[in-house]
Amino acid sequence: MIRGKVTGRIWSSKHIETLPNGGLLEVETDRGDKLVAFDPLGCAIDESVLITQGSVAAAYFTKLKAPIDALIVGSIDE
Amino acid sequence: MIRGKVTGRIWSSKHIETLPNGGLLEVETDRGDKLVAFDPLGCAIDESVLITQGSVAAAYFTKLKAPIDALIVGSIDE
Amino acid sequence: MIRGKVTGRIWSSKHIETLPNGGLLEVETDRGDKLVAFDPLGCAIDESVLITQGSVAAAYFTKLKAPIDALIVGSIDE
Amino acid sequence: MIRGKVTGRIWSSKHIETLPNGGLLEVETDRGDKLVAFDPLGCAIDESVLITQGSVAAAYFTKLKAPIDALIVGSIDE
Amino acid sequence: MIRGKVTGRIWSSKHIETLPNGGLLEVETDRGDKLVAFDPLGCAIDESVLITQGSVAAAYFTKLKAPIDALIVGSIDE
Repeated sequence: MIRGKVTGRIWSSKHIETLPNGGLLEVETDRGDKLVAFDPLGCAIDESVLITQGSVAAAYFTKLKAPIDALIVGSIDE
Repeated sequence: MIRGKVTGRIWSSKHIETLPNGGLLEVETDRGDKLVAFDPLGCAIDESVLITQGSVAAAYFTKLKAPIDALIVGSIDE
Repeated sequence: MIRGKVTGRIWSSKHIETLPNGGLLEVETDRGDKLVAFDPLGCAIDESVLITQGSVAAAYFTKLKAPIDALIVGSIDE
Repeated sequence: MIRGKVTGRIWSSKHIETLPNGGLLEVETDRGDKLVAFDPLGCAIDESVLITQGSVAAAYFTKLKAPIDALIVGSIDE
Repeated sequence: MIRGKVTGRIWSSKHIETLPNGGLLEVETDRGDKLVAFDPLGCAIDESVLITQGSVAAAYFTKLKAPIDALIVGSIDE
């Protein structure tokens, strides 16, 4: 997993059908990269989060084949 | 997922049989990298898009084992 | 796999349900990157460890679909 | 997928049994990285190709579990 | 796949149970990165090898779910 800090939120009105409803947060990682992660926890801007990537992230969704390759799995206690 | 901006389109007349019909767009990502993503949404040049990568991208195709490791999952509202 | 050195530990009180109980260690890799790996071995700060990444890391968990994409698989003899 | 240009060919007399017969081409990618991809299309030196990576590449092989994580899926029209 | 040169060997006395017996070699890749790959071929220091990564590497092991994300698939003829 990698650490990151939530920097924003994005919206996508035009999307493929299997994109799950829920928050898509922009995160800046420890490494200075930016990515967009699905947020099942309701995280806020500036919150420190733990992100898992790849097919492991998609496996969180059990009822649909969600096209999600980055998932916030926890908020980091500070 | 990562954000990117569509910069072009590519064509491949000589390809393996399982390459799905549809648009293959060149995208420049947030990180300055270039990649080629399958576009199921009909995106235009300069459009901001959200891209998922890896086996999660291939799972979008349910009838064939598509050799697609990057998929545009949405257009980003701006 | 990549080599790394344990540099810290993180806690996450607010997390998704499938995050397994157990240590989440911060590791600095050979390449200078930081990542957070699940530790099934009880490693200590400054210990040199071997880390596997991706869906291979999640496959270690047989009873649940753990959202773990980095796993400490061994401590390196020095 | 990523774009690349074929720069050479490699041979491996000593290999694991499941390595499929066929061309292994050295490719220099858009990003300046070098990788070795399996070539099912008979591409030539200096040809521009489209490469898919990861488990998606291995899924091309239906009869064996090929240890292939990079596959040329098409030649790019220019 | 990526090319690399074997630079050393590592041992891990304290490891998870599913780590397969066999050589764990340190390899320096074409890109200047270091990684540790499982070696089913008995490669020597300074040997040029071809490495596959990710879940494709783990699929080589048919009887156990090996936590191996990098596998030497061949020695490169030079």
